Amino acid sequence: MAEKIPTTMTAIEITQPGGPMVLKPGERVVPEPKPGELLIQVRSAGVNRPDVLQRQGHYPPPAGASDIPGLEIAGDVVAVGQGVTRFRNGERVTALVAGGGYAQYCTVDETNALPIPAGYGYIEAAAIPETYFTVWHNVFERGALQNGETFLVHGGSSGIGTTAIQLADAFGAYVITTAGSTEKCEACLKLGADRTVNYRNEDFVEAVKDATSGKGVNLILDMVGGDYIERNYEAAAIDGRIVQIAFLNGARATTDISKLMVKRLTHTGSTLRNRPVEFKAGIARELELKVWPLLVERRVAPVIDMVYPLHEAWRAHERMEDGQNIGKIVLDVS
Amino acid sequence: MAEKIPTTMTAIEITQPGGPMVLKPGERVVPEPKPGELLIQVRSAGVNRPDVLQRQGHYPPPAGASDIPGLEIAGDVVAVGQGVTRFRNGERVTALVAGGGYAQYCTVDETNALPIPAGYGYIEAAAIPETYFTVWHNVFERGALQNGETFLVHGGSSGIGTTAIQLADAFGAYVITTAGSTEKCEACLKLGADRTVNYRNEDFVEAVKDATSGKGVNLILDMVGGDYIERNYEAAAIDGRIVQIAFLNGARATTDISKLMVKRLTHTGSTLRNRPVEFKAGIARELELKVWPLLVERRVAPVIDMVYPLHEAWRAHERMEDGQNIGKIVLDVS
Repeated sequence: MAEKIPTTMTAIEITQPGGPMVLKPGERVVPEPKPGELLIQVRSAGVNRPDVLQRQGHYPPPAGASDIPGLEIAGDVVAVGQGVTRFRNGERVTALVAGGGYAQYCTVDETNALPIPAGYGYIEAAAIPETYFTVWHNVFERGALQNGETFLVHGGSSGIGTTAIQLADAFGAYVITTAGSTEKCEACLKLGADRTVNYRNEDFVEAVKDATSGKGVNLILDMVGGDYIERNYEAAAIDGRIVQIAFLNGARATTDISKLMVKRLTHTGSTLRNRPVEFKAGIARELELKVWPLLVERRVAPVIDMVYPLHEAWRAHERMEDGQNIGKIVLDVS
Repeated sequence: MAEKIPTTMTAIEITQPGGPMVLKPGERVVPEPKPGELLIQVRSAGVNRPDVLQRQGHYPPPAGASDIPGLEIAGDVVAVGQGVTRFRNGERVTALVAGGGYAQYCTVDETNALPIPAGYGYIEAAAIPETYFTVWHNVFERGALQNGETFLVHGGSSGIGTTAIQLADAFGAYVITTAGSTEKCEACLKLGADRTVNYRNEDFVEAVKDATSGKGVNLILDMVGGDYIERNYEAAAIDGRIVQIAFLNGARATTDISKLMVKRLTHTGSTLRNRPVEFKAGIARELELKVWPLLVERRVAPVIDMVYPLHEAWRAHERMEDGQNIGKIVLDVS
């Protein structure tokens, strides 16, 4: 813990926009914590879809954020900036960051860090922030999911999907999810989904109607976009809500807006990375209060797909783009 | 007041789906008030877009509603059903109905009737319910318009538009509106609009950006649809809301859903006619509390475009379809 902090570190750089191979280890100056920030010695870093988009040149980091990819980390506090009150050197934390996670050291505002839940190692802890912050905000705050409601989450075997299934189930929703193989559907059922739809051979609109006595679902979390938009309008119940958090199948969609009106749907969406730290701090407080206890009891837990060493970040991206993962891909930085 | 209620009445019938000329006077049995209902001797009836759609065969009346067109009336209570508590024979009321307004007599649940505001005649009173109920729910409840916010309403010279401009202005919003001629734009300015856009020679997205220092508007009330959908996404501010209440330019629209997500927009909508009387009663209570005083003070007031006798309902529809009206078209039933 008292070991000296080096002046330089290894970090994964996006050498140019392109395929996974543009990710290469490079040497960077270890960042210094600004007032209110922690310097974390990173032990593990989670891999997320936005990292892939950033690598491809489609998702530039927000102003002030590191150009190094990586939105979530777990590790040890090794230095604190002026005015830090909650954490001290040596504490084990997991944190949501706006960039810079694929590195040996990373700074974060202390309000966006949380203690690693009891019983969790760095690998699991690094797999928590991005999907838990995203799901909490979009499903429970923006989407206002209530106990007893019906919930459809697309991409059930993704990092977001596995988290959404578990949390929605834990908070009393009836969970329907789509996934691309029998194996993935089975994994979703084990996580708490009540009904799965293999989208390769079943229409999710029909399946949703079938599972809800024709009523449709109260809430849909969608990261697919494209032709799913209109089908979501069909699958939604009267007064249903649809929250859009990505558009893997494309952002342009043709829809029948009369469905939105006649069913009084609410279609909204959000992105997390570009929000201010104060906003993320609010989610962090809610998570610690309402979800950390569930993590400790293992009623919910991140699903780890594969772990790669930091310098093989390109392999992690390759796997994510292949779409074969069930749950989270994590980089081991130790 | 004590005159005998006849057994039959004149009502405008939709003899078959088609143009304005399919509207013809016919003889109908005077309806009897069910428990909780009032029988109104209609003095005036408002004309609305949904009446035109119904006449064309595109908007069938909801289950249980009269097949006679007409969604709003003003007149005298001439009989009351069992359990009616608020109104008594001889009182002058204005009411929102699910159909049957183009007739000499019409029944309505007493909770969907309101006393005619002091100083208003039947013509003006009949021009209130449909647009005031619609605007109140969609702009202030569903759209949550706040004092100091920016508001864009399309079709500013329509019945909905003239009501939305006045109410949004009265409740402290900065109001931008689109209309199709210089004359209509001038009328909108007089009603309280802060900025008008003649959509025939100006792009409303640019105008909105110009009027809001590039920020866009907090709320949009849209009844146009079609290519306006995507342009609404462009004209909306971060965290903006868009409420869809019709789609005169078509229900199918191609949109860039990434705008909805990145700007965290909320796109929703509703229809009024098919909602239960209890829901409409809730709006009625709010209107009486918050808007009736403004009507009495004439800080807001319905804008009357033209009045036709009941048997010339076809002319009223012709005028509405020509789109030349500024404000409401009303039928005189006296």
